[in-house]
Amino acid sequence: MRIRELKNILERKKLDFALFCNLNSTMADPNMFYFSGYSGLGALVIPRKQKGFIIAPKMEVQRAKQSMIKKVYTMDKKKFFDSIYAVIKKNKIKSKKIAIDNNNFTLNSYKYFKTRFKGIKTKDISLDCLKLRQVKTNKETVILKKSCNYAGKILQKAIRNFNDFKTESDVAAFLEYEAKKLGLGMAFEPVVASGSNGSIPHHEPKNVKLRKGFCVIDFGVKYKGYCSDITRTVYLGKPGKKEKEIYNFLLDIQNNIINKIGINDKCGKVYEDCVRDFGKKAKYFVHGLGHGIGVEIHELPNLTSKSKDRIMENMAFTIEPGIYIPKKFGIRIEDVVLMKKKAYVLTKVTKDLLII
Amino acid sequence: MRIRELKNILERKKLDFALFCNLNSTMADPNMFYFSGYSGLGALVIPRKQKGFIIAPKMEVQRAKQSMIKKVYTMDKKKFFDSIYAVIKKNKIKSKKIAIDNNNFTLNSYKYFKTRFKGIKTKDISLDCLKLRQVKTNKETVILKKSCNYAGKILQKAIRNFNDFKTESDVAAFLEYEAKKLGLGMAFEPVVASGSNGSIPHHEPKNVKLRKGFCVIDFGVKYKGYCSDITRTVYLGKPGKKEKEIYNFLLDIQNNIINKIGINDKCGKVYEDCVRDFGKKAKYFVHGLGHGIGVEIHELPNLTSKSKDRIMENMAFTIEPGIYIPKKFGIRIEDVVLMKKKAYVLTKVTKDLLII
Repeated sequence: MRIRELKNILERKKLDFALFCNLNSTMADPNMFYFSGYSGLGALVIPRKQKGFIIAPKMEVQRAKQSMIKKVYTMDKKKFFDSIYAVIKKNKIKSKKIAIDNNNFTLNSYKYFKTRFKGIKTKDISLDCLKLRQVKTNKETVILKKSCNYAGKILQKAIRNFNDFKTESDVAAFLEYEAKKLGLGMAFEPVVASGSNGSIPHHEPKNVKLRKGFCVIDFGVKYKGYCSDITRTVYLGKPGKKEKEIYNFLLDIQNNIINKIGINDKCGKVYEDCVRDFGKKAKYFVHGLGHGIGVEIHELPNLTSKSKDRIMENMAFTIEPGIYIPKKFGIRIEDVVLMKKKAYVLTKVTKDLLII
Repeated sequence: MRIRELKNILERKKLDFALFCNLNSTMADPNMFYFSGYSGLGALVIPRKQKGFIIAPKMEVQRAKQSMIKKVYTMDKKKFFDSIYAVIKKNKIKSKKIAIDNNNFTLNSYKYFKTRFKGIKTKDISLDCLKLRQVKTNKETVILKKSCNYAGKILQKAIRNFNDFKTESDVAAFLEYEAKKLGLGMAFEPVVASGSNGSIPHHEPKNVKLRKGFCVIDFGVKYKGYCSDITRTVYLGKPGKKEKEIYNFLLDIQNNIINKIGINDKCGKVYEDCVRDFGKKAKYFVHGLGHGIGVEIHELPNLTSKSKDRIMENMAFTIEPGIYIPKKFGIRIEDVVLMKKKAYVLTKVTKDLLII
């Protein structure tokens, strides 16, 4: 994706090549996947003037060759950066000043890098990459739409089958099972939080009986590497008048933001406007209003207080206000929208309070 | 876990406190969970002389209070390190030189940290933490055993039901579903690789029909934060004599290592001995022989070429030789063992070639 734009950044900043690394399986550089489609161990090198290539350990070479980058070298040295250095020298690629992503180099991996790439200067292009990634290409929006469709359909199926579930874990297991059966990955561990657990926004589903009252279900899949993210709050039992009121109060806020948000809006202001809509209940809204979404679950823009990001055409992001009354209950309603002239909802699942 | 030992490290190195951070949801410091049982957003501060505490954003405070650390502060400032700095000042904790984990600070987060903690010196204790974590306490071994038991039972159930599965994704979905139903997390995305896909050690299961021949299944759960990891290779169809031979050849190698490995063995030598056992087939063994396992799926010791780690009592690690014939097939057999006087297998699932 967008290697040309990356090369323009290198050109503008006079950088010889961009280096993205996955040194181990716990920390994968999302830019590596974004630019190459490869997410295994190894490194992606995109020189300013030559064609890009991957250097992968022997065990990953076959997988790397299935990516968008057709040139793949096998790591022949025992040490990670020795191998990369050797391939770069062999290809006679200039390497005075190079681009890296400072969000994906730990202090230790950078130190290790420096022992081999002595005297080389590095320039952080993390923000450039995030800004590139925040506006989606047509190809990406097609994939994102499908990712959101899958998440929506699976969530609806779970809601239809809700009476079969005894525990929060049952719900989470069902969501993941349906996703996996379709060969989809998970965008994150699902949140299923019933009763007072709902007041913990990132509650981990437990093997405990579903409790009466509101139940927050926050779920997303990964389709072709792209994340979706949807939250619906259902009601187990018979909601009282006050409970219906508070749900609809939140739903109105959420719909209102989606209808109102426009190109060039300042994200900090969108958040502050939302807090104003909450009125006296603002103290129960304890997280950001939304986040960009793409190859990572959290990308730019940030819809949080004081954010200086601005809404642009073809951005994809969540709108997810919530109300959390400590030790009592929680409600959250979340959609992914794609910004066109207006915000276009990708997660098309009814938002009426579903009573189970 | 082991806060006293951490304090001893601080004492020995004359460090005022240890700081572990989860700045965002994509990068969680395993040490934070190890020492506190908390894995959400925020920071864990363990001063050399005072009691430790957590500083968590409002939305995570309830979750943090469920951890082993009872003192929890709410992040009141808009910025992460401003909040931490304020709490440290308020508690009058000396902060001239502090301990951090350089494997869990990115270049950017460190830069951000430095803007608030001006003039403070940091010392990397990543290796100290890894070395502390490689030897398991009794409490940890009990949890690890359970984690391995769960993984083994779920894998056996999948093998019993194998005829119901049509695709690699079906198998992966089943494994995850069974885990989630029990409220377990995943240690990693399962590998289900049939036919020639088996020759890619980290193959991602696809929504494609299971092929005849060897099928590698590599799977692990997370129980109370602790990982398990088991690989079995089954055979779909009727294996020929040569196929049985090569399977048993690998199995002998694996059993042999488990029987032979002893306290104080050098891991590099264990690996080299294994390569020698492979003989002419060594070129088809393309990855390390094993890795430590605990709160992370890959910990110390490293059973790889040139590793200087030594086997110690109460270490938990995998033994996982494999044979990968490019574009043809793959076989891997993996157990987690706990080192006592001898290596004690925790993943008790038969290793006879299972024919489906």
